[in-house]
Amino acid sequence: MIIVMKPNATDSAINDVIQRVQENGLETHLSKGKQVTIIGCVGDKTRLADKNIEIMPYVDKLVPVTESYKLTNKKFHPSPTSVSVDGWAIGPETLTIMAGPCAVETEEQLLAIAHAVKESGAQFVRGGAYKPRTSPYSFQGLEEEGLKYMQTAKKETGLRTICEVISEDAINAAVKYVDMIQIGARNMQNFQLLKEAGKSGLPVLLKRGLAATIDEWLNAAEYIIAEGNPNVVLCERGIRTFETATRNTLDISAVPVLKEKTHLPVIVDPSHATGVYSYVPPLAKAAVACGADGLMIEVHNDPAHAMSDGPQSLTFENFRELSAELQPYVSLAGRKL
Amino acid sequence: MIIVMKPNATDSAINDVIQRVQENGLETHLSKGKQVTIIGCVGDKTRLADKNIEIMPYVDKLVPVTESYKLTNKKFHPSPTSVSVDGWAIGPETLTIMAGPCAVETEEQLLAIAHAVKESGAQFVRGGAYKPRTSPYSFQGLEEEGLKYMQTAKKETGLRTICEVISEDAINAAVKYVDMIQIGARNMQNFQLLKEAGKSGLPVLLKRGLAATIDEWLNAAEYIIAEGNPNVVLCERGIRTFETATRNTLDISAVPVLKEKTHLPVIVDPSHATGVYSYVPPLAKAAVACGADGLMIEVHNDPAHAMSDGPQSLTFENFRELSAELQPYVSLAGRKL
Amino acid sequence: MIIVMKPNATDSAINDVIQRVQENGLETHLSKGKQVTIIGCVGDKTRLADKNIEIMPYVDKLVPVTESYKLTNKKFHPSPTSVSVDGWAIGPETLTIMAGPCAVETEEQLLAIAHAVKESGAQFVRGGAYKPRTSPYSFQGLEEEGLKYMQTAKKETGLRTICEVISEDAINAAVKYVDMIQIGARNMQNFQLLKEAGKSGLPVLLKRGLAATIDEWLNAAEYIIAEGNPNVVLCERGIRTFETATRNTLDISAVPVLKEKTHLPVIVDPSHATGVYSYVPPLAKAAVACGADGLMIEVHNDPAHAMSDGPQSLTFENFRELSAELQPYVSLAGRKL
Amino acid sequence: MIIVMKPNATDSAINDVIQRVQENGLETHLSKGKQVTIIGCVGDKTRLADKNIEIMPYVDKLVPVTESYKLTNKKFHPSPTSVSVDGWAIGPETLTIMAGPCAVETEEQLLAIAHAVKESGAQFVRGGAYKPRTSPYSFQGLEEEGLKYMQTAKKETGLRTICEVISEDAINAAVKYVDMIQIGARNMQNFQLLKEAGKSGLPVLLKRGLAATIDEWLNAAEYIIAEGNPNVVLCERGIRTFETATRNTLDISAVPVLKEKTHLPVIVDPSHATGVYSYVPPLAKAAVACGADGLMIEVHNDPAHAMSDGPQSLTFENFRELSAELQPYVSLAGRKL
Repeated sequence: MIIVMKPNATDSAINDVIQRVQENGLETHLSKGKQVTIIGCVGDKTRLADKNIEIMPYVDKLVPVTESYKLTNKKFHPSPTSVSVDGWAIGPETLTIMAGPCAVETEEQLLAIAHAVKESGAQFVRGGAYKPRTSPYSFQGLEEEGLKYMQTAKKETGLRTICEVISEDAINAAVKYVDMIQIGARNMQNFQLLKEAGKSGLPVLLKRGLAATIDEWLNAAEYIIAEGNPNVVLCERGIRTFETATRNTLDISAVPVLKEKTHLPVIVDPSHATGVYSYVPPLAKAAVACGADGLMIEVHNDPAHAMSDGPQSLTFENFRELSAELQPYVSLAGRKL
Repeated sequence: MIIVMKPNATDSAINDVIQRVQENGLETHLSKGKQVTIIGCVGDKTRLADKNIEIMPYVDKLVPVTESYKLTNKKFHPSPTSVSVDGWAIGPETLTIMAGPCAVETEEQLLAIAHAVKESGAQFVRGGAYKPRTSPYSFQGLEEEGLKYMQTAKKETGLRTICEVISEDAINAAVKYVDMIQIGARNMQNFQLLKEAGKSGLPVLLKRGLAATIDEWLNAAEYIIAEGNPNVVLCERGIRTFETATRNTLDISAVPVLKEKTHLPVIVDPSHATGVYSYVPPLAKAAVACGADGLMIEVHNDPAHAMSDGPQSLTFENFRELSAELQPYVSLAGRKL
Repeated sequence: MIIVMKPNATDSAINDVIQRVQENGLETHLSKGKQVTIIGCVGDKTRLADKNIEIMPYVDKLVPVTESYKLTNKKFHPSPTSVSVDGWAIGPETLTIMAGPCAVETEEQLLAIAHAVKESGAQFVRGGAYKPRTSPYSFQGLEEEGLKYMQTAKKETGLRTICEVISEDAINAAVKYVDMIQIGARNMQNFQLLKEAGKSGLPVLLKRGLAATIDEWLNAAEYIIAEGNPNVVLCERGIRTFETATRNTLDISAVPVLKEKTHLPVIVDPSHATGVYSYVPPLAKAAVACGADGLMIEVHNDPAHAMSDGPQSLTFENFRELSAELQPYVSLAGRKL
Repeated sequence: MIIVMKPNATDSAINDVIQRVQENGLETHLSKGKQVTIIGCVGDKTRLADKNIEIMPYVDKLVPVTESYKLTNKKFHPSPTSVSVDGWAIGPETLTIMAGPCAVETEEQLLAIAHAVKESGAQFVRGGAYKPRTSPYSFQGLEEEGLKYMQTAKKETGLRTICEVISEDAINAAVKYVDMIQIGARNMQNFQLLKEAGKSGLPVLLKRGLAATIDEWLNAAEYIIAEGNPNVVLCERGIRTFETATRNTLDISAVPVLKEKTHLPVIVDPSHATGVYSYVPPLAKAAVACGADGLMIEVHNDPAHAMSDGPQSLTFENFRELSAELQPYVSLAGRKL
């Protein structure tokens, strides 16, 4: 933490700041310049968190020099983490593909899709049983019934299962039926839900919020891990910008940035990022090429009649083609499907 | 709803689209041009919501022409709504001021602040008992204990009380102790929480999400009202942009835009919008000048030692001055404090 | 300037950095902590501008603590500047209103508008003779002919005149006919044009770029002043965000932020910020209430037939009403029209 | 073009709108619904551009259904364009690499870099002679002297040359010395410069503006082509968002979006997009994987002493490695280097 004083700061004001920092157990280092005086603070900066030094007289601004997340921070855990889900390790050795419908609609639909995505090489089937929808008049999901279909899909295909949860009740139900839970973009800073997800013990896929910085995202992951659950996978799914040609803007740079900042695995969801099925294959390849540990892709047996997000869903045929096209990229990345 | 076909759309593709629309009970109007053919659809467009017309062959795009929110829509409820809270009507006749600390810290602190803001003319005391914080290592609030202090503050001062809720449990507790609940920016699309807030029957202040469009915000309000609770007040508190000189960017244009689109009251929170106490007074005046129905302002007995958001809090003296300066603006707006 | 070293930085790496800084004539202050080492640099940081210290071994990041703009910086020029244009001082004592059509269309049109806005109290008539348009197929302006009409309008009404310039040629022509030139949002970082505007000696209204931070904007102003022309007025006209209910998002907080960072006058353009004439009056009042030194407002004799930006233009009647409504706000601000 | 009327529009208002549209030579198709009436307009919509129909009584909004750009539009030119530069075709068959320093510093530096990038497979050497810099106190480029060094570099290595231009003077100089000119992000809507670039006849690389939508970008390209110069290549270089971990946010989805909307070649600049050299290789691979026609990459002989953008520059060794790693991705894309 560095404290920058205003140009005209008096010696007395500078001393007051130094005193408050030292009282809280940190060391200070003073740099006095002609234009500006800065005070370097070394020690446990969380002790200063509530001290409001930025509004002491003549303080211009505080500049943090270390991140507030620790458990997710690569500086303190240099080796990449693998998150194990029913025998499959999501991490640096593999390329994980989670595929399936946006919403679970019927048992038949889900089973058909699960069989199809398994044949094309996916290791997980995804499917929404609890759907966060912008309008209250849109389809909201089958809830626990949908989770049961996920369990059946697992029994029939052997695929691992992942479902979004939107409440403590949903987590309690999910624990009974699925292998992994997902926290969606709109709930990335629903801290109550993050804590519950941490307590559940299930592996968690944490999607990035639409307006979340990478630092906020890692702090959100910290909430889960701080509850004793280290099994967190991050999922970039597009951020909100001024551009409207795509539903969101896929921040693909987040992949290398995260690889530098955190040890957690990172997957990419090109379906939600773009909202347009024809953009999914090129962006899926791009994600693998730049180091992503996996992909989440919407696949539907009949996109034209899907109850949610049909326009961004691949058909079985589209998905089969994409899987085939991805193979050489996965090999180049030194991973295995 | 308008369907725009691609330039080379075949007659057969156009007929397929028309047929699907009509099957769902809507009328169609065909406009064939040299470059492009468009199909106007008249009727209940929610019936088309899951029909995925945008991925039928040769369909270029769908253009909505009506909003998906109904209960919050001024088109269908032209008169402005007043939301009554313990005898005070938030709406077009009044200028409502909600003031208080970001976080409830102790009973003494809260009472001191409540007395001070009452003297300066506030009708509500605000105070956070459940704090959503970016880092899990920051102070998270006193929870139910904090709500009890709010109740005491009401008894002692007669002020109405408002608290943020972040979970169903918090709502259940809030119902016992406070007059109005707040859904924070990070939970604006926590649809589960919106529904619970609707069921609670308490008046709800709904803050805008950091990346929420005005349309999404009105849809979020629709979730609450659709549960039978019409007492919703909107609160603009800044959106996330590229500018970093302020914590967020206050979208003040949202005030006149909302006045045109919805009948619900709109208040402005310049404290969270800017994150800097010295910017609060000019923006508070601006909000009143452009038609806001109220203000939410952070006030603290000792900002330099506040446990949360000290830098954006006004002192008692600052708040007293601001209240005095606001008076002529409130009069010009034809409102009463 | 502060240099933050990586956690595992070797002594030798730290010494290399210190040496490079000192070689360039700055002093260093070392703060060694358990987690991180920081090096404070005091002196003329422009000497380090091209030294690429951020890519020296074990350097984590550089943190600037002083702004790169000097001539526009309030720290070094604490008193507010007034920019004088033909006897009218734009600055803290007055409220300046610049009104007129987006584009000069005919002499008759411009004269009619100039007379009307004068009657309602404007001190400047604005009008575009060189129009930057998104599409090459839109009306591009009357160019020098339009400037001549501006000169006539001045002769007939006594109003001061302001015109946008988009090239060196346009500046050379403007010098002959108008009192003040405007650099538009799209050219805010057209550095060549900024330099020419500086050399012209004419007062310059510098609009904020759609994606420009306040710091970049002040650096753009610095380009003009560095050429020896101190007569710069800043104009906030909306930034680009994800919200589409308005053409741009008026960053009204920029007014108090600029009042803190710079001594230059600041005016607000609610017409371009919103793109909707009915939002102009509330936002004009808001701008005055929060400290703006003036307003730029589009007024047209016949908005329904305007060649550019009709939807955001006020009629004469609208503008007359707005002027009357603004009066008490101007008085409250302690200014004179 | 579709005109949406307000819910309570009178027949007379509807007829007025229909009449104005028809007067301008377009056909109308009326769709009357219970909630809303829409008027489809078929014909040359540019005739309505200045008719301000959106402010006629009872008009709610106008919805464009066709793009305003024609010459760049894939709908009217379905085959991809190749832009030929001194015998090299930038387009669907090849993967073009433009590499070199941000700024030309000395002849020796440029020649050393040109030889190095040629050895690693680049077909173009890039180098800035006119530098747009945020601060007037940063290095502004060698101007015409720099262009001469570019010419020498071409003579010595056979590489094609590309330089940014920032004014008509710079274009006039560039015509004499280099093969291709670049319009930078800050000048994307400097329409005067676009027209001059069009008239120059030289192939033009048009970078995307920081806040430019894809549609605005294609309209900017239209300005160049409308002057009779069809040789335009688009370059995605990152847009401005709230995320600060990278200098800009690379909008990689723009590649597939552009491939759908335009026939022009598209290249990607990962150096400016991220500002960090270590992110360049993963994003370069991603760009090739998702269909880009080329890459622009900053390479410097001594990044630690570069006069501009050192932190994002690759060393010769970095660039050699990247080129080798890119080979299999180029082959997978069915292109040749």
